[in-house]
Amino acid sequence: MTKSANTMWGGRFAAGPDAIMEAINASIGYDRRLAPQDIAGSRAHAAMLAATGIITDTDAEAIREGLLTVLSEIETGEFPFSTALEDIHMNVEARLRDLIGEPAGRLHTARSRNDQVAVDFRLWVRDQCDQADEALAALQAALLGQAEAGADWVMPGFTHLQTAQPVTWGHHMLAYVEMFARDRSRFADARKRMNTSPLGAAALAGTSFPIDRQMTAEALGFDRPMSNSLDAVADRDFALEFLASASICAMHLSRLAEELVIWSSAQFRFVKMSDKWSTGSSIMPQKRNPDAAELIRAKIGRIFGANVALMTVMKGLPLTYSKDMQEDKEQTFDAADNLMLALAAMTGMVSDMTAQRENLKAAASSGFSTATDLADWLVRELGLPFREAHHVTGSLVAMAEGKGCDLPDLTLADMQTVHDCIRADVFDVLGVENSVASRTSFGGTAPSQVRAQVAHWKKVLT
Amino acid sequence: MTKSANTMWGGRFAAGPDAIMEAINASIGYDRRLAPQDIAGSRAHAAMLAATGIITDTDAEAIREGLLTVLSEIETGEFPFSTALEDIHMNVEARLRDLIGEPAGRLHTARSRNDQVAVDFRLWVRDQCDQADEALAALQAALLGQAEAGADWVMPGFTHLQTAQPVTWGHHMLAYVEMFARDRSRFADARKRMNTSPLGAAALAGTSFPIDRQMTAEALGFDRPMSNSLDAVADRDFALEFLASASICAMHLSRLAEELVIWSSAQFRFVKMSDKWSTGSSIMPQKRNPDAAELIRAKIGRIFGANVALMTVMKGLPLTYSKDMQEDKEQTFDAADNLMLALAAMTGMVSDMTAQRENLKAAASSGFSTATDLADWLVRELGLPFREAHHVTGSLVAMAEGKGCDLPDLTLADMQTVHDCIRADVFDVLGVENSVASRTSFGGTAPSQVRAQVAHWKKVLT
Amino acid sequence: MTKSANTMWGGRFAAGPDAIMEAINASIGYDRRLAPQDIAGSRAHAAMLAATGIITDTDAEAIREGLLTVLSEIETGEFPFSTALEDIHMNVEARLRDLIGEPAGRLHTARSRNDQVAVDFRLWVRDQCDQADEALAALQAALLGQAEAGADWVMPGFTHLQTAQPVTWGHHMLAYVEMFARDRSRFADARKRMNTSPLGAAALAGTSFPIDRQMTAEALGFDRPMSNSLDAVADRDFALEFLASASICAMHLSRLAEELVIWSSAQFRFVKMSDKWSTGSSIMPQKRNPDAAELIRAKIGRIFGANVALMTVMKGLPLTYSKDMQEDKEQTFDAADNLMLALAAMTGMVSDMTAQRENLKAAASSGFSTATDLADWLVRELGLPFREAHHVTGSLVAMAEGKGCDLPDLTLADMQTVHDCIRADVFDVLGVENSVASRTSFGGTAPSQVRAQVAHWKKVLT
Amino acid sequence: MTKSANTMWGGRFAAGPDAIMEAINASIGYDRRLAPQDIAGSRAHAAMLAATGIITDTDAEAIREGLLTVLSEIETGEFPFSTALEDIHMNVEARLRDLIGEPAGRLHTARSRNDQVAVDFRLWVRDQCDQADEALAALQAALLGQAEAGADWVMPGFTHLQTAQPVTWGHHMLAYVEMFARDRSRFADARKRMNTSPLGAAALAGTSFPIDRQMTAEALGFDRPMSNSLDAVADRDFALEFLASASICAMHLSRLAEELVIWSSAQFRFVKMSDKWSTGSSIMPQKRNPDAAELIRAKIGRIFGANVALMTVMKGLPLTYSKDMQEDKEQTFDAADNLMLALAAMTGMVSDMTAQRENLKAAASSGFSTATDLADWLVRELGLPFREAHHVTGSLVAMAEGKGCDLPDLTLADMQTVHDCIRADVFDVLGVENSVASRTSFGGTAPSQVRAQVAHWKKVLT
Repeated sequence: MTKSANTMWGGRFAAGPDAIMEAINASIGYDRRLAPQDIAGSRAHAAMLAATGIITDTDAEAIREGLLTVLSEIETGEFPFSTALEDIHMNVEARLRDLIGEPAGRLHTARSRNDQVAVDFRLWVRDQCDQADEALAALQAALLGQAEAGADWVMPGFTHLQTAQPVTWGHHMLAYVEMFARDRSRFADARKRMNTSPLGAAALAGTSFPIDRQMTAEALGFDRPMSNSLDAVADRDFALEFLASASICAMHLSRLAEELVIWSSAQFRFVKMSDKWSTGSSIMPQKRNPDAAELIRAKIGRIFGANVALMTVMKGLPLTYSKDMQEDKEQTFDAADNLMLALAAMTGMVSDMTAQRENLKAAASSGFSTATDLADWLVRELGLPFREAHHVTGSLVAMAEGKGCDLPDLTLADMQTVHDCIRADVFDVLGVENSVASRTSFGGTAPSQVRAQVAHWKKVLT
Repeated sequence: MTKSANTMWGGRFAAGPDAIMEAINASIGYDRRLAPQDIAGSRAHAAMLAATGIITDTDAEAIREGLLTVLSEIETGEFPFSTALEDIHMNVEARLRDLIGEPAGRLHTARSRNDQVAVDFRLWVRDQCDQADEALAALQAALLGQAEAGADWVMPGFTHLQTAQPVTWGHHMLAYVEMFARDRSRFADARKRMNTSPLGAAALAGTSFPIDRQMTAEALGFDRPMSNSLDAVADRDFALEFLASASICAMHLSRLAEELVIWSSAQFRFVKMSDKWSTGSSIMPQKRNPDAAELIRAKIGRIFGANVALMTVMKGLPLTYSKDMQEDKEQTFDAADNLMLALAAMTGMVSDMTAQRENLKAAASSGFSTATDLADWLVRELGLPFREAHHVTGSLVAMAEGKGCDLPDLTLADMQTVHDCIRADVFDVLGVENSVASRTSFGGTAPSQVRAQVAHWKKVLT
Repeated sequence: MTKSANTMWGGRFAAGPDAIMEAINASIGYDRRLAPQDIAGSRAHAAMLAATGIITDTDAEAIREGLLTVLSEIETGEFPFSTALEDIHMNVEARLRDLIGEPAGRLHTARSRNDQVAVDFRLWVRDQCDQADEALAALQAALLGQAEAGADWVMPGFTHLQTAQPVTWGHHMLAYVEMFARDRSRFADARKRMNTSPLGAAALAGTSFPIDRQMTAEALGFDRPMSNSLDAVADRDFALEFLASASICAMHLSRLAEELVIWSSAQFRFVKMSDKWSTGSSIMPQKRNPDAAELIRAKIGRIFGANVALMTVMKGLPLTYSKDMQEDKEQTFDAADNLMLALAAMTGMVSDMTAQRENLKAAASSGFSTATDLADWLVRELGLPFREAHHVTGSLVAMAEGKGCDLPDLTLADMQTVHDCIRADVFDVLGVENSVASRTSFGGTAPSQVRAQVAHWKKVLT
Repeated sequence: MTKSANTMWGGRFAAGPDAIMEAINASIGYDRRLAPQDIAGSRAHAAMLAATGIITDTDAEAIREGLLTVLSEIETGEFPFSTALEDIHMNVEARLRDLIGEPAGRLHTARSRNDQVAVDFRLWVRDQCDQADEALAALQAALLGQAEAGADWVMPGFTHLQTAQPVTWGHHMLAYVEMFARDRSRFADARKRMNTSPLGAAALAGTSFPIDRQMTAEALGFDRPMSNSLDAVADRDFALEFLASASICAMHLSRLAEELVIWSSAQFRFVKMSDKWSTGSSIMPQKRNPDAAELIRAKIGRIFGANVALMTVMKGLPLTYSKDMQEDKEQTFDAADNLMLALAAMTGMVSDMTAQRENLKAAASSGFSTATDLADWLVRELGLPFREAHHVTGSLVAMAEGKGCDLPDLTLADMQTVHDCIRADVFDVLGVENSVASRTSFGGTAPSQVRAQVAHWKKVLT
């Protein structure tokens, strides 16, 4: 940084930081993304300074207009960003001075970079909560489309990746609708909690100028000003809570992505992924690789890695602002960008994929998947205690396995050798269609329940 | 596991798992902590089974009474836990059968270990949210006590661990009250979000028995049953959100602990820690080590480590239940235990510590800590633009530094060589008491603001 | 801690730490595992003190004999551990005083708990490196057994979980032998790097007693004493490096475990897991769940969580010893225990599992798995550039896919419509047996290569 | 991606991936950094293909020359990178075809992107190990400069940030020399372990072409080819081990940075940081903030975050290559860049900082820092058992504390009231200069020991 470039710091530094210091210290390479937030914050601040008589209306108007010009220059790519000016705040203010002269020097009255960056970054993260909500709603809609179409398509319900009981495709899709609903709820809570204004905390102690923090808070859409100025500049909870919520969301995405990868294997063939979301191989032309699903599965690493990074940074920092905290932005930007990308890609994949109904049903019909139905029948119809019914069912499964057949393939006589009260109507519960139709408990896999949930969600999502 | 011990599984397993399998598979060593929740869940389930006519009132009554006996045996330490019975569910049910015979075998009707463990663990985590809330309130009260006593004690406000501006002890304490308030709010949101009942999801698909999930949900204090049975058994968001909230809380603790360690160094001497929370050295008898603060500072490692552990476990798990998820409990137990311990210790330390007022004030009065007040005076009284005032102040600081004195020690004549409009009343703002008194912006460090916040918080906390 | 119990600290502490402090501060609940190392270290120290004339031979002999008695009491479970005595060092020394009286008080000459715990824990971790090596060798042997048996069993080689090319079972098993070999190599390097003695660093500065650090280092099997006493008591790299190595090892285990879970699904049926390593379901008697594989897959969470925990603890700790570092042990103990358990279980599972050869081969033979062989034939036999051969192959795959058949099912005439130089001997390379047999490049999947590698490893492992 | 752009994939994909897919899938935005490695790998491969007769010498020569042209275009910034061509491999090969025509299509014979990217990335990481070693050596040299200058400057040795015993500045600096030596040793081990060539593994199975893997391995500086082709394309241990080593190194940096932040506080004043590595404040012109130290302290977050990210990505991935693994590069690039930057900045800071000798000595002389010396004197001169000496010392410290003085300020008469055998020569050990001079045990803090270590390290580092 040349001496002249850094006139904002004043003349106390004999030696200018060299290239390494600039490389480690300057943030303009990434915090330029905060330009719209920085300018919104400064415009609100200037209006308040005038309303409270701290600066003149004329100066405030010049500042506010000048900032719009700066914003427009940034949006059109004409803005001359300068690394010597370190960060977005200095870059904007320096340009403002070029544009409007002396009044620019009054903008920073009753403010500090500490509360300025806190408000900028908070506004940015708040916006990401809104974007995540929107992207999650779109993904829910895509899942709902699958659920509605396949409310009664039978597929295996797995535990331990072993066939457990038959369920419906719609029911499986709806499970993810629930997960992503919790994610939306978490982002909403985080947004509400972070929606308080640090502006006016100044460097850390507040100010002796008669500022109106309520006014700037309202102008920026905050619910209220933060109640403690030290906390206002020292707090990065909002970024951490966003990252924690994004991480859990990415975990949900990783589970769905894993299923899509497994389901599109030649051994499962439960879904056909669209070519749009697959790629080929440079040496194996026959491959249709579920690249998008794999990349989405991987995003949890990056997003949760960012969470770990910022938690580690914040560990043990004394109050209030420490420069360590400058590491908050790149991690959060990267995590947010990748979350949005992963959500968009997943929405596309889910919309475009085709369930292979025949394969799903065939898989559901094997593996003694209606053993539980049989056990329940023994309880319900013969009055056996559950644990005894369980034993009887176990013996029948062992018998079928020994014969190399499935449960419905046993004869009534076979069955009666295990328990002589078994009647022919037991076969009604051994078919997978009947099995799923019978699970009518609230939230169960029966098509009737699935359709009720689909109807509920369609109302919620519109 | 001996064959006879494991009669609940039925006879299909020719080979019993050996010692390694038992060691890796059995959870009774830790999930016995879920006994109260397991029994509460089973009692609610039994009552519902009777109310819906699935089992008889007589059986239900026997089950419910028997479970109380089991609980009492566990509480008094008489219960014969068996590793061969693997987990708490099997242990309780086996003992129930000893106590009441055949009806015990009817308890598991329309239920599975999958929804059973989901409800048990969820109840446990919900309880931890309540305990965290209570512990945090106590810590806030301790901080509030310090804040009230020292609403006007002057101390240095730091950025970069450099003296920035004078602040008040009460203000600094209140910053942590705000942080812990956000923590409470996060636990409250998590609690609300997790407060839905998985019971009735059975293995994963729901059940064909005419159960009443609303009834069991209400009996267990849940807001409603979960809407998707696959999600109900596959979900561990509640534990992850608890861990994420606990991690952020532990981060706050680590910051306060770091400050206490630094403040109790011989170089700072800002606080005197009570002997209760310090220890000596086996070789250096003069040492008074802030062990409790250091141990609290370290707890973020363990708590966030648990968060990482469970996130890693959940990554990429296909639906619904996988045995991987059994690793959820030890991590959550350990994190919760350590969070509660850290909160209790911090509450004790804060209550017992003594601020060293003279040292705080002396530190606040050095280091040109009222430079900002001077700059603000130049803006307010002389009408200088902020940036120009900043330059003038910089020159005055440089002058004082050159003379080896602080700002109030400069003469008016000295000052006027830098800017000839400076008047004698500038000295009014150069004293630290005046400085803090002037920061009356909302949330600022002025004693008046601090007292207003203390009054607010006292009302909230009672 | 009662006043009398804590006589080692001397009388400077007016107030004893209460129950919370004891709970957060005392380590005897877990560091008792270091008893053998603690006693070995003390015995070496006592011998050195005598050899250098710092204490008498008689005292040293009494100490060394007394310590053996203590060790024997601990091993037989008779030792009266006391929480009031905080840690293993105090417990051992107090008991030693009971046993031998005054000379016990001379043992701690020229030593501190700081270097004592450093040596104890380092010896423990060093031992875990050896145990990990042994366990990994056993796992390699189990994999080698599978590799030797199935050196020529054909299975699909996957990328993206899509069939890519046929490979051999032996080759796949050997891939893990390589990974675990790197793990062994990492543990060996870590062991070597940690094998230096902190004993003699005393509290942190070294000592004025004429100790012989080389002598104690040798007695304890260290390569040499550490060269800087501050570093000796402040360093926990050895634990972190162990945890990092364990984490990578656990990652390898998670990959193999994932494969076993997928392979034992009804859709894959590539392996049959032994009943020993599977469990049933309380409601679905037919299930054979790969519990051990899932639990192993999950262990990476716990082990890497411990790594995160200790890294977080160590972040930003000033020199030398801080009490935060007491959190090192539980994390490392838990990670080591779980790694050893996971390795043992995996060794058992691999030894007991049965590859389903027919299923493997059938899977390898579908999915155009020899497309690359075809492309290579076009290059080799017809001189086509690779990229052109790739195009031709792509067209042939598309043709086969259109006809619903695989590559070997196309007629020569069909093929010649795509490229008229294709000859009948192309069919030689389209069979999976020929395909794998042809991959004879070093490290390739050809049975000849696999057998060469098996022979190599058998020599290494014995 | 337009159809024409992607002619390398062949015509099987009806639908081109759209913008989202391109955004999530294309890696050219970052993997262009691998261009030198990619071209080196391709040149070695081409030479080998000719040497083994797989392609002609003429073709190989054209390829090798063409690749040099491509490299030169990239180095001069003229290269037209194309996102449609996805990655660096495709970009390079497409450009090669433009330059040399048909022979370009022969380069990919007996190779796949799987082994190509594995070799590229491995070469890049290997180079980072070398760069880390160099940067660490420079940092060691800077520390050594400080150590040599201040071999006998007395400063407080801390435990728990409490003064424990006097040590020397040189000794403290050397502690970090040891830590960074272990880091170098870890990078060296990692480099050695990763230095095996995946080239020739092809897609995953090896190849039927008569390639010479030893030849390419040698050409690229590898010790040997990897022994298993599946492992060769599935392995990312080298990146993980680099990240683990970088994380431990960053932890060391965070400890030193923390010390520098604390030491440059107004309360400590142990060091004066150069203006080059400090910054001012926009509102507090007097501040000299240790920004570089804080930013370095924060880097552990980012670097270990990358380690977490990649570990999470790799968890549970079945063999061999999955697209998830594409997430390896950005994390590793970012971690390596930030490690190098942090090392460079720390080297500069350490070189430029000035220890404040008087402050260090004054701090060392207070706080009863020679209590251990007193205890040791009682053992050595009076023959007291250590534990009794410890008690006597404790009483003397309590007496001094009561009188508000330090140990050397007590009179002999005072001391004799505690133990009547104390003699006047006890005062010899109570001065800090004598104290440090007496710690002559190997690796102790005595200036003689420090100078010996400095001499040793100067030899090692040159």
